[in-house]
Amino acid sequence: MEKVKVAVIGCGTISPNHIKAYTKNERTDIKYLVDIRPERAKKLAEKFHVPHTTTDFREILHDKELEAVSICTPNDTHAKIAIACLDAGKHVLCEKPAAINMKQVNEMKAAAERNKRILNIGVVNRYNTAVNKIKEMIDNGDLGNVYHVYCSFRAHRSIPGLGGPFTTKSKSGGGVLIDWGVHYLDLIFYSLNQPKILTVSGTTHSELAKNMKDYTYINMWAGPPDYTGTYDVDDFVTGLIRTSGPTISLNGAWAQNIGEPATFVEFLGDKAGVKWQYGGNFTVYSAKDGVLYETIPAYAQKDMFYEEIDGFIQSVMSDMKSRSNIDNVLVTSEVMEAIYTSSEQGSEVTL
Amino acid sequence: MEKVKVAVIGCGTISPNHIKAYTKNERTDIKYLVDIRPERAKKLAEKFHVPHTTTDFREILHDKELEAVSICTPNDTHAKIAIACLDAGKHVLCEKPAAINMKQVNEMKAAAERNKRILNIGVVNRYNTAVNKIKEMIDNGDLGNVYHVYCSFRAHRSIPGLGGPFTTKSKSGGGVLIDWGVHYLDLIFYSLNQPKILTVSGTTHSELAKNMKDYTYINMWAGPPDYTGTYDVDDFVTGLIRTSGPTISLNGAWAQNIGEPATFVEFLGDKAGVKWQYGGNFTVYSAKDGVLYETIPAYAQKDMFYEEIDGFIQSVMSDMKSRSNIDNVLVTSEVMEAIYTSSEQGSEVTL
Amino acid sequence: MEKVKVAVIGCGTISPNHIKAYTKNERTDIKYLVDIRPERAKKLAEKFHVPHTTTDFREILHDKELEAVSICTPNDTHAKIAIACLDAGKHVLCEKPAAINMKQVNEMKAAAERNKRILNIGVVNRYNTAVNKIKEMIDNGDLGNVYHVYCSFRAHRSIPGLGGPFTTKSKSGGGVLIDWGVHYLDLIFYSLNQPKILTVSGTTHSELAKNMKDYTYINMWAGPPDYTGTYDVDDFVTGLIRTSGPTISLNGAWAQNIGEPATFVEFLGDKAGVKWQYGGNFTVYSAKDGVLYETIPAYAQKDMFYEEIDGFIQSVMSDMKSRSNIDNVLVTSEVMEAIYTSSEQGSEVTL
Amino acid sequence: MEKVKVAVIGCGTISPNHIKAYTKNERTDIKYLVDIRPERAKKLAEKFHVPHTTTDFREILHDKELEAVSICTPNDTHAKIAIACLDAGKHVLCEKPAAINMKQVNEMKAAAERNKRILNIGVVNRYNTAVNKIKEMIDNGDLGNVYHVYCSFRAHRSIPGLGGPFTTKSKSGGGVLIDWGVHYLDLIFYSLNQPKILTVSGTTHSELAKNMKDYTYINMWAGPPDYTGTYDVDDFVTGLIRTSGPTISLNGAWAQNIGEPATFVEFLGDKAGVKWQYGGNFTVYSAKDGVLYETIPAYAQKDMFYEEIDGFIQSVMSDMKSRSNIDNVLVTSEVMEAIYTSSEQGSEVTL
Repeated sequence: MEKVKVAVIGCGTISPNHIKAYTKNERTDIKYLVDIRPERAKKLAEKFHVPHTTTDFREILHDKELEAVSICTPNDTHAKIAIACLDAGKHVLCEKPAAINMKQVNEMKAAAERNKRILNIGVVNRYNTAVNKIKEMIDNGDLGNVYHVYCSFRAHRSIPGLGGPFTTKSKSGGGVLIDWGVHYLDLIFYSLNQPKILTVSGTTHSELAKNMKDYTYINMWAGPPDYTGTYDVDDFVTGLIRTSGPTISLNGAWAQNIGEPATFVEFLGDKAGVKWQYGGNFTVYSAKDGVLYETIPAYAQKDMFYEEIDGFIQSVMSDMKSRSNIDNVLVTSEVMEAIYTSSEQGSEVTL
Repeated sequence: MEKVKVAVIGCGTISPNHIKAYTKNERTDIKYLVDIRPERAKKLAEKFHVPHTTTDFREILHDKELEAVSICTPNDTHAKIAIACLDAGKHVLCEKPAAINMKQVNEMKAAAERNKRILNIGVVNRYNTAVNKIKEMIDNGDLGNVYHVYCSFRAHRSIPGLGGPFTTKSKSGGGVLIDWGVHYLDLIFYSLNQPKILTVSGTTHSELAKNMKDYTYINMWAGPPDYTGTYDVDDFVTGLIRTSGPTISLNGAWAQNIGEPATFVEFLGDKAGVKWQYGGNFTVYSAKDGVLYETIPAYAQKDMFYEEIDGFIQSVMSDMKSRSNIDNVLVTSEVMEAIYTSSEQGSEVTL
Repeated sequence: MEKVKVAVIGCGTISPNHIKAYTKNERTDIKYLVDIRPERAKKLAEKFHVPHTTTDFREILHDKELEAVSICTPNDTHAKIAIACLDAGKHVLCEKPAAINMKQVNEMKAAAERNKRILNIGVVNRYNTAVNKIKEMIDNGDLGNVYHVYCSFRAHRSIPGLGGPFTTKSKSGGGVLIDWGVHYLDLIFYSLNQPKILTVSGTTHSELAKNMKDYTYINMWAGPPDYTGTYDVDDFVTGLIRTSGPTISLNGAWAQNIGEPATFVEFLGDKAGVKWQYGGNFTVYSAKDGVLYETIPAYAQKDMFYEEIDGFIQSVMSDMKSRSNIDNVLVTSEVMEAIYTSSEQGSEVTL
Repeated sequence: MEKVKVAVIGCGTISPNHIKAYTKNERTDIKYLVDIRPERAKKLAEKFHVPHTTTDFREILHDKELEAVSICTPNDTHAKIAIACLDAGKHVLCEKPAAINMKQVNEMKAAAERNKRILNIGVVNRYNTAVNKIKEMIDNGDLGNVYHVYCSFRAHRSIPGLGGPFTTKSKSGGGVLIDWGVHYLDLIFYSLNQPKILTVSGTTHSELAKNMKDYTYINMWAGPPDYTGTYDVDDFVTGLIRTSGPTISLNGAWAQNIGEPATFVEFLGDKAGVKWQYGGNFTVYSAKDGVLYETIPAYAQKDMFYEEIDGFIQSVMSDMKSRSNIDNVLVTSEVMEAIYTSSEQGSEVTL
């Protein structure tokens, strides 16, 4: 069997997850690593035995052998690169969020359609084992009528790279909502089988680092701070979403004056409720015949990046859209944009 | 000094809090206890040395010596009794919620105004020591800009008196929102110095006992269940409120498939955040000069019912409105009604 | 910039802390590792890319390029090696305790002075972040008048290397007092800004392993026991120290029939008190305006060995004495010797 | 059998313990209750059916039938009343501390001897069941060589009756040492079979209420504060005591900036150690044949006040001195006075 030749564009923090998964997958070979900083691409190429590197993704688009690319670049470049790749006939797996606004997302989707190519988004929690177990329970009716989902992605002091691209809206499209909320919202919509969204209301705040030097923290991911940079994104978001299924309420914070981080999703049904610690286990709360139960399931955890990449390759080879196709993920971007809109106008948005 | 003569109307579960506080207070004497079930009034009268009891509150209204009454009857009777007492020239302290809908609340307020009498509502948390310490911190600017309040009044299995007045909307006006939420919302508005409410969005559900016999529980306050009765009230509510100050998000449940109860309020400021465990202590989370602090204050706890009653008597004697006057508490009822309306119409309400 | 060339003499358990810190420091290069057992030096040299090893520290003293040494050998060799190095013109960082008695300590100090070289002692807690935060609070007056310090370094079963050098007074100079107490006393004197010591009273005991085979334990650091060896050191010490500032009371044990280890220092002031868990966080207990506060600060932890080594190199390059110079640490040895003397004579010692 | 007729002089907080024990004891009858405030004596006389009350203890001394008295008056009156009673031929049980200084204690002892009467001191912990179980273990050799006792009587905020007799040295003789320390020291000396005291070193401080209005507290026993009163006693004491047996170290505080109260005694032996929570249970820590044991004994608790009174009556009837006779308890006062002396002079005292 001929292996699918792929390229990974962007060699920053997230890229090794893609590279490892492609390397482990017997149906693919990585032919190119691309990064505008040549040493980043070269270092990873050496480690993972990738034959070619380049600083300009355009140079590899003419390569007929290249069938698919992963895009791991900053958010503001997703649309431009994805569209160029799709127009060159490549299949694309683009890291989340799809893009920095709906206009770009729609253009990406249009490019996939006109070129009849796969466009997947890196909403990797759709491949998380716990999430899929929960989805299975919901599908089986084990939770009964799921009438509400509470979603909490609140940290104490976790603003990433203060003053850098993460905190500059023109580059990132937003803060905690677009960076963390995308995962939570997307996995909720997935678990609920993509309910229709009716209304979206929300408020975002940019509080704890509005004067960057006043921001006290212990560690900083993607740090240290650049006090000459920009901080114009949300570090807090609250929202309420009505759907054709359950309502969803959410509170999220990159940084907030709280004690313990509170990062979990609760699916509340009339027969049972599930609380999932993000990235960890879940607990089932149920009641039957006069007895209340608290159940902690254990199961083999699959590697969610491997599964995501394998699903992408399967789509590429079979031309069948999968769970992380732009068709399914689009709504996640729509809701995030609606929250930003609702926050600006101070009232609910009807989709 | 002449002591203020008072009556307590309704001798159920809440009434001993009023009776003890009047008894302890050197400025008042209880002259009457009233209950439609004569043995309930007599038992308490004996215990607390109250001279008179009756089954009909109308009988005592002609007594010129009687200056003030506490109303501790079921929610659906608040308006009728309060208005009759006010019209008879008595000052009134009415248990929370003020009434079962805004129409009644407005009528009560009008009766207080036309008779120039005090009408206080039993929002006793306005006299809780912790709440007042937190309010003091907010007023002093210790929390900086308070940009969000998260309010959680969620229990696991606490539906009271299933099938009885608590769960019958025509008697109670509603379920968890009107029974518990009234305390939380009211103390939040108090702590924030009564901000103007802009928008209210919410959804209520009646899920865990919609088939009463399916409701599994461990203990039942005001129980046991009456399976021939009615269950048509909310056991879950979620909401989002925009104000002239912070946004407020809330999740409340009398019963829900969760583990631990989550009953707390978080006041989130840019300088510090406070988490108050309902009925208990609070913790302050702050940061300064590169250090993060978690602080647990301890302080002498005042008896909040004593303070509430003393504040009422002070108002009666001085004719000065106090923090729990209907003027201040009205908005709490307005917001609750707006949540019910928003839930029914499936969209946000603008006040 | 020319890097400072250093040697580490003694390649036992403590030495990697020095080697890592020198390696990480951009202002130094390790030129030699020295140990009488050649394989110990070679193994570390390979791991940390050190060019030379030797078994005799005298061989490297003629090397003009070598500016500074760390001494990580057993206690009884500190004085001899330090004096030889100082006399050869090298700057010295000598592990704690300075030496096994004051006679040796004074000779070391004299050698530093006559050669005009830096002699630092490895009292690494002077570079612990928590200790310095506490010192800062004391200096700022946040604790008010610090009138007492209680110092507890009590373990359940922690005699190290029973029958070996640790428990042989001629090699170690003493037991728990000199091995653990040195850290606690030194950091207390440092935090209090080196108060004048007035009186010292104490008693030491050698109890739990006086018959070595009777000593029951679970784990043994630097073990296993050598029942042919010697056990003639203190496994318990109690003491009371008067200073120009607060009094200090102490209880310390390598082994004792207690439950939980109790290893902490309490700084007791009239405005606030601090309890520091050795090696961990601290809590501040304070009171103001009728409220009692318990505060747990969080802060970025610096690597104390890195800071210690960097401070030493700074001293070497600038010729400025620092906080861990023998001038400041001498008193710690004096107090320990006074406790041993007080114990022997059964009465208080006046310094 | 003729019952022993007794009087209780002083009807404050401690007296009901005596009155109840005499009432319960079949060998005694209370004939008089005495208090300078007549209503205090009368109230208790009514409750416990005592036939006579008076305001002046001198009035009852002529009563031949009266054989024994309990003295429960403030510390500064102990000596005067006890000596008068002894000189009138009565046996005396005097509440602790014996008196406010050694001069008075010695005069009391002399009065007992010249009149050949029993003089017991109310060191009630000598009758505590746990204390006696521990003493039994020590006597049996279960702890091996008891080489150290650590004694901690430290509270957070427990100054009693600020500004009243408790905090006025001329009335109380001292603060936490004489009020709480007397119990701890006395029970330690009792448990150790009255070892000879060799040296005493200590320091006392009066810190947390030196400016009375600055003292923040939650509750106050024997309160509320009298800000016009005096605060000139110790609220903290530290000490080190050498005896013919173990050394004893102690830290005690009525009030201190700590978290949890720490009120316990540890008896540390080479075979086993005991930790007794004051007023509660004890735990035994031992080791044998390679196994470490933590043992919590349970046993029937006797009423220590009953036992104390019964022992006193037994002495009165048999003319045999018992464990709480002044002969045994004298040393406790000596050590306390020595600690005060040592603190004043800043050096150790040799007894």
